[in-house]
Amino acid sequence: MAGERIFLDHASGGPLLPSARAAVDKVLAGHGAAPGGGHREARESREVLEHARKQAAEFLGVEDPERIVFTSGGTESVQSAIRGWGEGAGKGTLYVSEMEHPVVEAAVRRLGKAGFRVVRIPVDGEGRLQWTKVKPVEGLGLACVHLAHHDLGTVQDLKQAAVFAKSVKAQLLVDASFGAGWVSLPEGLEGIDLLAMSGHRLGAPKGSGLIFIRSGFPWRGQVQGGRQENDQRAGTENLAAIAGLGAALAEWIKSGEKFRKAAGEAQRMLLEGIRKKVSNAKLHGPEPGPERNPAHLGMSFSGLEAEALALVLDRMGVAVRGGSGCVTREMKIPPAMKVIGAKPEEARALILFTLGVGSPNPDVATAADRICEAAKRLSATLPA
Amino acid sequence: MAGERIFLDHASGGPLLPSARAAVDKVLAGHGAAPGGGHREARESREVLEHARKQAAEFLGVEDPERIVFTSGGTESVQSAIRGWGEGAGKGTLYVSEMEHPVVEAAVRRLGKAGFRVVRIPVDGEGRLQWTKVKPVEGLGLACVHLAHHDLGTVQDLKQAAVFAKSVKAQLLVDASFGAGWVSLPEGLEGIDLLAMSGHRLGAPKGSGLIFIRSGFPWRGQVQGGRQENDQRAGTENLAAIAGLGAALAEWIKSGEKFRKAAGEAQRMLLEGIRKKVSNAKLHGPEPGPERNPAHLGMSFSGLEAEALALVLDRMGVAVRGGSGCVTREMKIPPAMKVIGAKPEEARALILFTLGVGSPNPDVATAADRICEAAKRLSATLPA
Repeated sequence: MAGERIFLDHASGGPLLPSARAAVDKVLAGHGAAPGGGHREARESREVLEHARKQAAEFLGVEDPERIVFTSGGTESVQSAIRGWGEGAGKGTLYVSEMEHPVVEAAVRRLGKAGFRVVRIPVDGEGRLQWTKVKPVEGLGLACVHLAHHDLGTVQDLKQAAVFAKSVKAQLLVDASFGAGWVSLPEGLEGIDLLAMSGHRLGAPKGSGLIFIRSGFPWRGQVQGGRQENDQRAGTENLAAIAGLGAALAEWIKSGEKFRKAAGEAQRMLLEGIRKKVSNAKLHGPEPGPERNPAHLGMSFSGLEAEALALVLDRMGVAVRGGSGCVTREMKIPPAMKVIGAKPEEARALILFTLGVGSPNPDVATAADRICEAAKRLSATLPA
Repeated sequence: MAGERIFLDHASGGPLLPSARAAVDKVLAGHGAAPGGGHREARESREVLEHARKQAAEFLGVEDPERIVFTSGGTESVQSAIRGWGEGAGKGTLYVSEMEHPVVEAAVRRLGKAGFRVVRIPVDGEGRLQWTKVKPVEGLGLACVHLAHHDLGTVQDLKQAAVFAKSVKAQLLVDASFGAGWVSLPEGLEGIDLLAMSGHRLGAPKGSGLIFIRSGFPWRGQVQGGRQENDQRAGTENLAAIAGLGAALAEWIKSGEKFRKAAGEAQRMLLEGIRKKVSNAKLHGPEPGPERNPAHLGMSFSGLEAEALALVLDRMGVAVRGGSGCVTREMKIPPAMKVIGAKPEEARALILFTLGVGSPNPDVATAADRICEAAKRLSATLPA
């Protein structure tokens, strides 16, 4: 089993897209002036900043770049989006599933403590949010939906989410931290009031992210101090990361279809390879296709603890994530697996294989071989 | 007046230190895995992260690197430090001057609205906080002090601040966003419970910053979600920025004295050159020496509006900041100038000249010539 290492944990990171790297390098090689000043260097930085904002607006398909606020990443984006809505509304109802990312859950819990009502959205066996089964509450509201689930890969039906939000007169928040780029967004972000995303899963630098905030409802910035980002996000701009994000998004406008197709093919090959060789492998979340993030496979190998299998795989040259990508330490079982009704032994066995864009296509055939071998080896160590 | 541009706005930014740039590049050229996983790539990233944390601990002179939390920059650091204390304490008193950075003021205002008492620290004519004149309040408290003032350059007496904090049994927060590196910190951060700083004024990347949090009092992280940074700051780590910050701080341990000396000499030369040539120039804050940040000059040219003079200077090839570095748009007059009793026409005329470390020493003699010429030209346009 000698050979190159195969990196299948792109949800955690990966190399930058060359165009993103070039944009970062250009800023880092420059004078470094903040965009806020009156001198020539500041104006030059301002141009870089506003160019990136236009690139982001084009990627999202929205007309007004001014509705985009750059942040330090997905976590800040999601948290600020939700808390900012809460501070603007003062009171109201949060509609949210029980399998959202811990960032969403943390923000929801915080607002819950502050008196907001929390209504849970039911979920089906493949992780689809069941909007028609939600009990609406009178008054202000925020409906929260992820674009693609971090552990299940499930792509949510944003049209249905928008119909629900409209029917209860709530705003709609889309957490696109997982799925942005990989999954299409509605044209013009129709029906979406708030969208939060991170840059690094699209080949943009870590430390980059954004929030889209539609006008028409009160929202309050959560990082306060200076007047950067149209007063919506204080702090000296991380121009290198922002320029890198802009360049990456511009690349996705151009080559997104190619990226999605390549990932989707690798995803299918990996899944088929594993299924052919490992009889007890089970896919969680939808089959590859429009309902699944093409960069994501979540599988369990029944009876084999995820962390142990991931460890064996690491020794065999395959980097994967064992267990939820973002679970808390106490809860090794991904909450989403419980929500969709997976058996506890399946939940404990969830392995995530995630693909990226910044690196050449991984050798998924070899990966499947190694996964088969690792599963065999680990099974052999267990009592019969 | 032809010749190279002279950049004297390093408070807003500047080139990276070569060692910081190299550390950034190394991370960006790598696999990009987040430090949180179990595989080899994650372990490698974890080593980079913890190496930077050790470098930061050594720079601060504290023994336990685990007390350091990396953030997205100075604004987040300061805000999280103060709000995090507030959330831990639940109630209490904030001791704070009326000339703090808008980030401090925003956090204090937020806690004030939540029921915290705010006691203002008097300030003398050169911007020194008058700790002996503060009226203490019973109960939990946080005494806030900046290391060096952003508009006045005044270095605060941290020993006196620590004596006050101890006497009222309050925690002491030091906002070192301005001054870190340039001004010595007490050995072992003695007497300091919270310290917030930004990386970019030390030649580290924008988007880097940290909080030091001493143990012994409750403090709550403000960016919540994942379990990064020992549960104190959620969000995928911006490893490139963190590595760059670590490398820059390591460089400061080695060469800080040289950096301070070079800046101090440029500061004196610039001040003398201006004083020799511009009779109506006035320094605000202390004279160069131990009471002033060696990288900072704040001067007024009486009768000449700061923004107009900065504009003329920009045309003549000198980049400076006219007015406060961080003032809000409505308040063009830096609040600190009012607090120290400067005349309104002086306050409106404040120009900041700030030096950096990532670029060669500026030609301050030429800068002084151009400043003299700009002041003359602008005066000539005004009614006698």
